[in-house]
Amino acid sequence: MPNSFGKLFTVTTWGESHGPAVGVVVDGCPPRLPLAAEEIQVELDRRRPGQSDIVTPRQEADKVEVLSGVFEGKTTGAPISLLVRSGDARSSAYDEMRDKFRPSHADYTYEAKYGFRDHRGGGRSSARETIGRVAAGAIAKKVLALAGAVEIRAYLTQVHDIVVPPGALSPFPTLAEVEATPVRCPHPATAAAMIARIKEVRSAGDSVGGVIRCQIRGVPPGLGEPVFDRLEADLAKAMLSLPATKGFEIGSGFAGTRLKGSEHNDPFRMVEGRVHTISNRSGGIQGGISNGEEIYFNVGFKPTATLLRTQQTVDTSGADTELMGRGRHDPCVVPRAVPIVEAMAALVLLDHWMRHAAQNQIFEF
Amino acid sequence: MPNSFGKLFTVTTWGESHGPAVGVVVDGCPPRLPLAAEEIQVELDRRRPGQSDIVTPRQEADKVEVLSGVFEGKTTGAPISLLVRSGDARSSAYDEMRDKFRPSHADYTYEAKYGFRDHRGGGRSSARETIGRVAAGAIAKKVLALAGAVEIRAYLTQVHDIVVPPGALSPFPTLAEVEATPVRCPHPATAAAMIARIKEVRSAGDSVGGVIRCQIRGVPPGLGEPVFDRLEADLAKAMLSLPATKGFEIGSGFAGTRLKGSEHNDPFRMVEGRVHTISNRSGGIQGGISNGEEIYFNVGFKPTATLLRTQQTVDTSGADTELMGRGRHDPCVVPRAVPIVEAMAALVLLDHWMRHAAQNQIFEF
Amino acid sequence: MPNSFGKLFTVTTWGESHGPAVGVVVDGCPPRLPLAAEEIQVELDRRRPGQSDIVTPRQEADKVEVLSGVFEGKTTGAPISLLVRSGDARSSAYDEMRDKFRPSHADYTYEAKYGFRDHRGGGRSSARETIGRVAAGAIAKKVLALAGAVEIRAYLTQVHDIVVPPGALSPFPTLAEVEATPVRCPHPATAAAMIARIKEVRSAGDSVGGVIRCQIRGVPPGLGEPVFDRLEADLAKAMLSLPATKGFEIGSGFAGTRLKGSEHNDPFRMVEGRVHTISNRSGGIQGGISNGEEIYFNVGFKPTATLLRTQQTVDTSGADTELMGRGRHDPCVVPRAVPIVEAMAALVLLDHWMRHAAQNQIFEF
Amino acid sequence: MPNSFGKLFTVTTWGESHGPAVGVVVDGCPPRLPLAAEEIQVELDRRRPGQSDIVTPRQEADKVEVLSGVFEGKTTGAPISLLVRSGDARSSAYDEMRDKFRPSHADYTYEAKYGFRDHRGGGRSSARETIGRVAAGAIAKKVLALAGAVEIRAYLTQVHDIVVPPGALSPFPTLAEVEATPVRCPHPATAAAMIARIKEVRSAGDSVGGVIRCQIRGVPPGLGEPVFDRLEADLAKAMLSLPATKGFEIGSGFAGTRLKGSEHNDPFRMVEGRVHTISNRSGGIQGGISNGEEIYFNVGFKPTATLLRTQQTVDTSGADTELMGRGRHDPCVVPRAVPIVEAMAALVLLDHWMRHAAQNQIFEF
Repeated sequence: MPNSFGKLFTVTTWGESHGPAVGVVVDGCPPRLPLAAEEIQVELDRRRPGQSDIVTPRQEADKVEVLSGVFEGKTTGAPISLLVRSGDARSSAYDEMRDKFRPSHADYTYEAKYGFRDHRGGGRSSARETIGRVAAGAIAKKVLALAGAVEIRAYLTQVHDIVVPPGALSPFPTLAEVEATPVRCPHPATAAAMIARIKEVRSAGDSVGGVIRCQIRGVPPGLGEPVFDRLEADLAKAMLSLPATKGFEIGSGFAGTRLKGSEHNDPFRMVEGRVHTISNRSGGIQGGISNGEEIYFNVGFKPTATLLRTQQTVDTSGADTELMGRGRHDPCVVPRAVPIVEAMAALVLLDHWMRHAAQNQIFEF
Repeated sequence: MPNSFGKLFTVTTWGESHGPAVGVVVDGCPPRLPLAAEEIQVELDRRRPGQSDIVTPRQEADKVEVLSGVFEGKTTGAPISLLVRSGDARSSAYDEMRDKFRPSHADYTYEAKYGFRDHRGGGRSSARETIGRVAAGAIAKKVLALAGAVEIRAYLTQVHDIVVPPGALSPFPTLAEVEATPVRCPHPATAAAMIARIKEVRSAGDSVGGVIRCQIRGVPPGLGEPVFDRLEADLAKAMLSLPATKGFEIGSGFAGTRLKGSEHNDPFRMVEGRVHTISNRSGGIQGGISNGEEIYFNVGFKPTATLLRTQQTVDTSGADTELMGRGRHDPCVVPRAVPIVEAMAALVLLDHWMRHAAQNQIFEF
Repeated sequence: MPNSFGKLFTVTTWGESHGPAVGVVVDGCPPRLPLAAEEIQVELDRRRPGQSDIVTPRQEADKVEVLSGVFEGKTTGAPISLLVRSGDARSSAYDEMRDKFRPSHADYTYEAKYGFRDHRGGGRSSARETIGRVAAGAIAKKVLALAGAVEIRAYLTQVHDIVVPPGALSPFPTLAEVEATPVRCPHPATAAAMIARIKEVRSAGDSVGGVIRCQIRGVPPGLGEPVFDRLEADLAKAMLSLPATKGFEIGSGFAGTRLKGSEHNDPFRMVEGRVHTISNRSGGIQGGISNGEEIYFNVGFKPTATLLRTQQTVDTSGADTELMGRGRHDPCVVPRAVPIVEAMAALVLLDHWMRHAAQNQIFEF
Repeated sequence: MPNSFGKLFTVTTWGESHGPAVGVVVDGCPPRLPLAAEEIQVELDRRRPGQSDIVTPRQEADKVEVLSGVFEGKTTGAPISLLVRSGDARSSAYDEMRDKFRPSHADYTYEAKYGFRDHRGGGRSSARETIGRVAAGAIAKKVLALAGAVEIRAYLTQVHDIVVPPGALSPFPTLAEVEATPVRCPHPATAAAMIARIKEVRSAGDSVGGVIRCQIRGVPPGLGEPVFDRLEADLAKAMLSLPATKGFEIGSGFAGTRLKGSEHNDPFRMVEGRVHTISNRSGGIQGGISNGEEIYFNVGFKPTATLLRTQQTVDTSGADTELMGRGRHDPCVVPRAVPIVEAMAALVLLDHWMRHAAQNQIFEF
């Protein structure tokens, strides 16, 4: 089931960039949860194109329909089917891609794997597929908030070589701080520089990537299923399953590989009657299991592969050729990826919450 | 099934550090494969303690027994059960850990999750669990070598702040180059510096981490199952499921986030009648699917958590206390992790090979 | 994933009886398969209400929409999303069921499990859910026909106490013979008696059950995955996952328990250069694996639970009460279950075909 | 993972009839459960050969070793590895089977599927594999007994054409009644007739089959996961995954297909403040979910395939030949299958208990 994610809270996405619709089926949602389409829509609105002048100008309403699993405003425990009709698709912009492989896109590998592909807008490999993830993540977020006051906050710390200065951010940026600028960096001066850089590369027909940081608080100790389904392993998979991602690091990450153990270890201390670590280089996870501290991780995104420039490539007949990028694209996908990262984190956490409950909380011996 | 990995080539590991044995069941292995215990043993020997003077001096033979699934020297298609009896265990060295949580180990989180734990040597969270992974990986490696001449080569590029100089390595280091030094870095001068650093921190009762690079060649185009089971996503999960790992990056990784699209994209060109990219910042995977180029990735390991020093911690009664590290430990686990990284890569690749075959190669319409 | 079936050819159904739509996502379909909506529609038309005067007179077009996974008339390997909008729903007929549990329906158990339910028409427990199964099964049937000339034929052998006489049927009834009467029994005289009995019980506000036999030919030796995913085990699960089923027997079934081994064993003999059994009490499966002979099994269906009579029951407040059946129902669901049984058989066979290919056909050692 | 069963309480069996050992890994067992090897041994002793003069005289101690997952007498939540060394194997008795396929055994289909097989004693297809199931089931039974006072009782109701008379049994036979005779039929007169019949066919070199009934009480309402993982569907799969089984029926079963709805429906009534059905033709499951009434089902077993007679067959070279059965076999496997049926029922119920908890009991909205 390569298009399903999660063992107990399972989401299955479907749909192509230029197909009639995209959607998701959410299986395993706890029953009796109040749920309105608006709560899902608000997250889709954070993700959709056309939000600002630094993202693609495509206008897609991305309006969600709830087709099952909710009755009189509450979940029933049955699968929740969510559907978003497609709107502003200009397939003709992709005619050239029928026969030519866009560099660093999935055109060639889909052709190699399946022997056949929907070339329009990347087909299944389009980031439009993430609509289903965000919709499902909105439900997961709500369950987590009700169950444990879990808060998930993602935001940009880097675009190209522009980086938030060390110590410049509050310990847990607010949603308002993140959403204050279209680039979703909660540090205003850095955000301004990022925006300028994005506009600059766009006007050159070029693109840039960046880094998203995600912080999560309110996760109780005990989530994570060693040895293979460690919490950080499932987070890593979730993030690397997103288009354009190239790296994941949790807690001290790659920088931590340059510390000595005596500098890196997180000493335990009792604080207000609870076990805490007085530093948090572990990133809230030890031995694959949450320890109650804040979970934080970074996700690296490569620059957008679509360039409004001429590039070398080959065609389906096996001849060298050139391709001129067309269409309406994000010169930097990272700002719109923020709600997607949050959604995937929510899916991982809720699934682990349910798995933990199954094994550890039902029997009291 | 948190102790199982892989959908079609499925391995299930079991066993605790100081239990009577550890082992693995391999389900889904293709039948008729010639397989001898010695082929598994050779990989276990690369992983076991006591190999050199920079790793733990524990003496464990780690001798594998093949209990099922192999008949007259060939696999039958039935599950292969592999078992390694434990030897040189000194549980008494761990008496203090019964009540005290070692900092940056899994002691506290296992207690929090399960309400009960085998404290001896970390119990289930011990890296001794990876014996089963290496044994299963040896089988996967052999199948891959027979099926597609796939070669997997991992080695150290960094210990603490000692890094292999850019351009210093051959394009695909040989196994002999890697195994030439106990630190498993194929650059002799860097290896010597790494060894010196490890001895230095050991004598100070301290520890260091590092980075493993893994290169894989011979993978055909087409492996990987979008959208969630992208090849890099499953590699990321595999690597982050290993003890002490903090980061994963594929292809250009985090460094690639600082390039522009025009610098990062990999142009396609026909080479000897086959589609190739003339650079490989994608790391051999595009859109979650292998493109036939070399796959390469980095894995970051934190410094060993066990220190032969006094550290602050708490005990199971909820009181602040101190803990003095004892026992025989690796001051740097990274050299012994090399065969484990290779094993996990092999498990991911073979599983995807089989999944690809199931969907794409059986029917010719 | 309780709403998903199959490990490699995975179908996920969603939707409630009186919701806006029902549907299915098919994940893992081989690419490059020619597929038209009409091929799916033809199977849905066999299942839908209002086909004849012995089934429910509800008029539902059950028109399928293909929303993804098919491009220019061929499957792409991406998930196929199929949707059927609801039509002729009269929810008001179910107002009384909001508070009262219909005997031998799922009303009480859904309330007990989920604490909340969509009471209209049985909600998720309605047989309307099987639309998704039939749609997915139509695709599986087509793949099987292309891959191996597999034919699946189900039909009624019993309604109430009316049974097809021994030896009365041709060895493999044709589709035309089955579809010749609305009761889908290929023996005309028995069919006539069945129809009369169904009309008789309907006029009495009562209902009857029956037995479906399913025969499958063209399955090659080798399908089935011991020890747990034996082919007959997955067929049994598939059939018992259908509403109203109470029993499954393969080959000689329960009657075979009354034979001696010397009467029951199927001797092997070479026939036209191939291994055959000269009897087939095994039902085409031995040790959980197909042996190349015809697979056949029976499925028992209880009488329809909805009666147009007054029945004793309790209400959600925990008081004894009575309930008068209303609405438009099938006095016998078995004829409309024929395409559903075929669909589930197809799903099982195709999934096993793909699983077999993954483990056994990719490597030639 | 064809050798694994269960989604949350997952058992993986391994081992061949004449291999050095058989075993099972149990993953997902709740932690802190008191567990002693003796509790597992008692169930293995019910299953092992040589218990009486009507089963195979092979002497196998089937002594279980607990290799992991239990520490100081309690489960830790880590996988539990159980191993049984093989003893009294006489492989030479099987030399002839290397080249000849025993009729109605799995010899031919294993050869067809895997292209290679361990012919000794049926290899992987041997019922010796069920040792792992019984061992795992013993743990599941214990958890169920602690969690909900669940009792599972299986026994024979039929051997060949000898059947327990209607109404002859107590409503829930005791374990002592079942174990009173080696044939495990709790009706003494019928048991005596069964024993006589088994001895009679054995002396003729022939064999017989029979039927096991299983009753389960103490299951709360709410277990079962529609629409595919209905409780009866998973029970059906569990039973049909056992060697030699040909049929499964739940509640009224095939006999119920001959009743009218007015005769078959189970009216609800309040009894001592709880919802009950005043009849139980549903067999304790409605809509795929337990309703709190007793669950009961029948499993049909064919006669033992091994006969001490000459039978027609073919050999691996594709020539017609004959085979004379040898070795020590059960002329009727059904009595020894009783603890196996109970074990599989326990595995299904516990898995569903945990799944229910995961979705339905963790959040209180």
